[in-house]
Amino acid sequence: MKRLLLLALLLPLLSRAQSITRVNPTNWWVGMKNGTVQLLIHGPQAGTLTYTITYPGVKLTKTSTVENPNYAFLDLTITATAKPGTVSIVGKKGATTVTQKWELRARDNAPKAQGVTQADLIYLAMPDRFANGDPGNDKFADLRDPSADRANPFLRHGGDLQGAAQRIGYFKDLGVTAVWFTPVIENNQPLTSEGGTMRASYHGYGFTDHYTVDRRLGGNAAYKAYVQQAHAAGLKVVQDAVYNHIGNTHWFVQDLPMKSWLNQWPSYTNTSYKQQPITDPHAAQIDRQVTLNGWFVPFLPDLNQQNPYVANFLIQHAIWSVETFGVDAWRIDTYMYNDQPFMNRCNAALLAEYPKIHIFGESSVSSIVDQAYYVRNKIDFPFKSNQPGGLDFIVEGAMLAALKEVGTPAATGWDGGPQRLYQALAQDAVYQDPTKLVTFIDNHDHNRFLSEVGEDFDKFKLGLTWLLTTRGIPSMYYGTEILMKNFKDPTDAEVRKDFPGGWPGDKEDKFTAAGRSAKENEAFQFVKTLAAYRKSHPALHSGKLMQYLPENGLYVYFRYDASGTVMVASNATDKPAALPTARFVERMTGFSKARNVLSGETLSDLKTLQLPAKTALVLELAK
Amino acid sequence: MKRLLLLALLLPLLSRAQSITRVNPTNWWVGMKNGTVQLLIHGPQAGTLTYTITYPGVKLTKTSTVENPNYAFLDLTITATAKPGTVSIVGKKGATTVTQKWELRARDNAPKAQGVTQADLIYLAMPDRFANGDPGNDKFADLRDPSADRANPFLRHGGDLQGAAQRIGYFKDLGVTAVWFTPVIENNQPLTSEGGTMRASYHGYGFTDHYTVDRRLGGNAAYKAYVQQAHAAGLKVVQDAVYNHIGNTHWFVQDLPMKSWLNQWPSYTNTSYKQQPITDPHAAQIDRQVTLNGWFVPFLPDLNQQNPYVANFLIQHAIWSVETFGVDAWRIDTYMYNDQPFMNRCNAALLAEYPKIHIFGESSVSSIVDQAYYVRNKIDFPFKSNQPGGLDFIVEGAMLAALKEVGTPAATGWDGGPQRLYQALAQDAVYQDPTKLVTFIDNHDHNRFLSEVGEDFDKFKLGLTWLLTTRGIPSMYYGTEILMKNFKDPTDAEVRKDFPGGWPGDKEDKFTAAGRSAKENEAFQFVKTLAAYRKSHPALHSGKLMQYLPENGLYVYFRYDASGTVMVASNATDKPAALPTARFVERMTGFSKARNVLSGETLSDLKTLQLPAKTALVLELAK
Repeated sequence: MKRLLLLALLLPLLSRAQSITRVNPTNWWVGMKNGTVQLLIHGPQAGTLTYTITYPGVKLTKTSTVENPNYAFLDLTITATAKPGTVSIVGKKGATTVTQKWELRARDNAPKAQGVTQADLIYLAMPDRFANGDPGNDKFADLRDPSADRANPFLRHGGDLQGAAQRIGYFKDLGVTAVWFTPVIENNQPLTSEGGTMRASYHGYGFTDHYTVDRRLGGNAAYKAYVQQAHAAGLKVVQDAVYNHIGNTHWFVQDLPMKSWLNQWPSYTNTSYKQQPITDPHAAQIDRQVTLNGWFVPFLPDLNQQNPYVANFLIQHAIWSVETFGVDAWRIDTYMYNDQPFMNRCNAALLAEYPKIHIFGESSVSSIVDQAYYVRNKIDFPFKSNQPGGLDFIVEGAMLAALKEVGTPAATGWDGGPQRLYQALAQDAVYQDPTKLVTFIDNHDHNRFLSEVGEDFDKFKLGLTWLLTTRGIPSMYYGTEILMKNFKDPTDAEVRKDFPGGWPGDKEDKFTAAGRSAKENEAFQFVKTLAAYRKSHPALHSGKLMQYLPENGLYVYFRYDASGTVMVASNATDKPAALPTARFVERMTGFSKARNVLSGETLSDLKTLQLPAKTALVLELAK
Repeated sequence: MKRLLLLALLLPLLSRAQSITRVNPTNWWVGMKNGTVQLLIHGPQAGTLTYTITYPGVKLTKTSTVENPNYAFLDLTITATAKPGTVSIVGKKGATTVTQKWELRARDNAPKAQGVTQADLIYLAMPDRFANGDPGNDKFADLRDPSADRANPFLRHGGDLQGAAQRIGYFKDLGVTAVWFTPVIENNQPLTSEGGTMRASYHGYGFTDHYTVDRRLGGNAAYKAYVQQAHAAGLKVVQDAVYNHIGNTHWFVQDLPMKSWLNQWPSYTNTSYKQQPITDPHAAQIDRQVTLNGWFVPFLPDLNQQNPYVANFLIQHAIWSVETFGVDAWRIDTYMYNDQPFMNRCNAALLAEYPKIHIFGESSVSSIVDQAYYVRNKIDFPFKSNQPGGLDFIVEGAMLAALKEVGTPAATGWDGGPQRLYQALAQDAVYQDPTKLVTFIDNHDHNRFLSEVGEDFDKFKLGLTWLLTTRGIPSMYYGTEILMKNFKDPTDAEVRKDFPGGWPGDKEDKFTAAGRSAKENEAFQFVKTLAAYRKSHPALHSGKLMQYLPENGLYVYFRYDASGTVMVASNATDKPAALPTARFVERMTGFSKARNVLSGETLSDLKTLQLPAKTALVLELAK
């Protein structure tokens, strides 16, 4: 009797069909430098199957199961002789056989992972807010947030990759050479309410399926097409990656492979957002753990990258993305919150496959020592980062602080005005290569630059001149060139407004000169002139920087190499100034005249420069 | 005719008698690790003589002459077998023979170069302003400034080493373990006028004869006696050294050996006082030169330490001073303005003779990267400093900024209040050994601490608690313990007032408890209690520091080792706070009670600490 009862109870379980509903990565390639891949197999009771793979050159070396029986992890070795084709993944249990097709592709020869360097100018935009090329994909009833509403700053607005592809001519006209979009990967998150304000997922940092580009942005096909069109036009593409967290409705969060997939806490614990516990030799373990493993916000669960399955998943997705879409550079979100040994493994894996790719993470820190920690540096920290680049928050802060003091008495002060930028750059000795840092003057999380400088057009131009001529890889936030402005509101939407003209029926079209005001065209032309100049002048790509101690609010630096010398002479005061140049003999010897890059004028005498108030001259020196 | 005329013109020159009026070093020793010494010989036409030395174990290896015929430089080798005695330096020219006696002494066994460590508490004072033990040496008619006037803040006041020696009991009572006086070497400078205010040389940084302690401080004999008495009482002595410059009436400035003895400029050039050009990889040569070789002020000529004779002179004087007077540690003025390769040679020479001596220079910088540059650090700068210690300007600035915000809303802010101290210490990864830095909270060049904190006694005690319990070798400026206060005036005299009771007939004697007000006695007792505690507790000498991220204005750190754990819990807000201690489990495990070091009370329950407003508890944890 008892045995029969037991059998009756077990029957429903035994009869539940095992199946495979998902394999990640969704495909792989023959001919990769690293010939191994770990497949995540997901499906009801997928972990209870015994797997075999019979395919020439492909060997299943290990099958791992975890706490949740719906998962299996299959380690494959793909030899150099393997041919592209469809691999059958066969899972068996008793009489049940499950077969899942999985593609092994040939690598294409399309350009990819070209990297970005100082020869580039990056343009950062949010795809949902830039241009709507396909109003048919603005919303989908089967997504968790089925809404789209341009009138609501917190909801999806309908911008997409098709819209971006249509504006490649605009990028080219402006003179940018690389476009960085905030993440394009599916964010199928519901509307949430934060302190009474609605919040949707248009910002893109809460992935719900790594292998799917968001349908509302056009999906995988539109992304691939966009990259191809960009490449055809000579533009590079930067992908925005997120390793630290995922959306709380990510499919694997809803059916966790194991508890340790996420950084778990006895009760909800937010990160402190504090940088110090990571680099402080005196820090307490709990403070390190809260910074690193505390969650970024409640709806973005924190991935445990010390879990080897999670690490493999993320690393493989990075390589898959570059190989599939052909992106050229890799921006990493919330870099400092990731497990740093994992970051090194991940960077190394990308660089091994793609030696020219540039990697630059976001570590929003306020100290140069901390900024150095997250990139290849010259400080003997217990942990040595291998990250080639990084976003330069120190220089951003210094530029803004400097510009706020331009035209005030502080501009000539001991530490004031241009001293701030000078002093930030003067600490470059902490980096292996400061020229690989990505500089910026605002972004989608900060107040817009024009508002930061009090809508002072002189300061605006001065800041852009610094950004586009000093060391580093400059990046510019969309709309800066058409004088978009605003301060952050609690949800940041105020600094993420739609680009006028990006939507069918927009009253204004600022993608065209005719749609821009005179002032906007002046700003656009200013960026365009500097961008065109830097594009064609190697001294700004690979030339050294020499900067002189600012005196009386006047700040002079040079970019120079064998091909030429560019002098940038800034007057941060509110009065015109005459600047004798004798002090700069180390860089000016042999030069007797100059071309004013912004005005086109020729200066036939360099003994004393006349510097208008709140202005930087960009001079190409000549013999 | 012409020949006769020439002879007639030359006769006065030829007939001028050669003589030797000075030999530096004034003596040397047998048995030094480095067996070479370079004698500077000065006197009319001393450079025209041919020198011989006949003394067993002493060999004259080289005689060098320079632009000025009044100088010769004699390189001697002193073998291990040489015996103490009087060496005859014989100079000949034609029929003229000049003989100069020079002593080669035996080394004494007196304590010297004991070093200072975290086990010490340094007391900094200006000898002219501390205590007048011999009113007979206050002024001398044959000195360039023959005046002394206590009513005039800019003139000599008469304090001396005899006075200091009489107060050794006071130092012991207070609990300091080492005394650092501003320089004691002769400053026979005239009164000068700077912007209309008189300025005398009481500050001591303009040497006029390296080998003579200023007569007004008691001379060489009084210095030696003072050091002996200090050592007998268990006190250490720190000497303040100046390599960067000398007084413009220094004997060798008045008869320069050669033009390159000083850093010369076509027209007077002041240093920019800017730190950046030294460490900036993008700096211009001229900016580096102005910082380094520009003069500190017009009346302090800048020594050219790249001149090998100058370098030898300074290094030998350093060794001579330690050997002669027996000082224990070596504070170096204006460290960052010196030629850094020279500084390394000089430090190495001192450390080779005196392995335990501590060397800590003054590099008044505002960035931690720059501060690291001048000490043994972990940054791969092109130049690697070998300086063991350094004055910690970063922590001074952080403590003062923190204390100013104590009790204000900023105390709980993102970067405010105790965060400032926490953040400064959190960057200690840049140093080889941050515990060798000398911490301070004011000095003879800064506003007095009590005034900096708005005469708020709570802040005063909080700052002293931090200074005396966090990492580093604490130093305290004289008079802090009796609540001396003031802001700097243009000549700094306001922060260098006489210690009341140091002069015969002073109405108040704050060297005694009876002469101090109740509040002054409270301050004195506060320092004394903490000083006594740190003296006897190794956790504060060599224990590690662990600091926790400040939360809500509450800042907690521990000093700990196998011998014990000291917890410092600071409340920077203006309200009492209850602090649950669960978060500090990493350091509190195994401890169930504590002794309040300042009050003597026992805390029998550590679950929640009650922290009064603007106060730090210092708790010795117990099982």
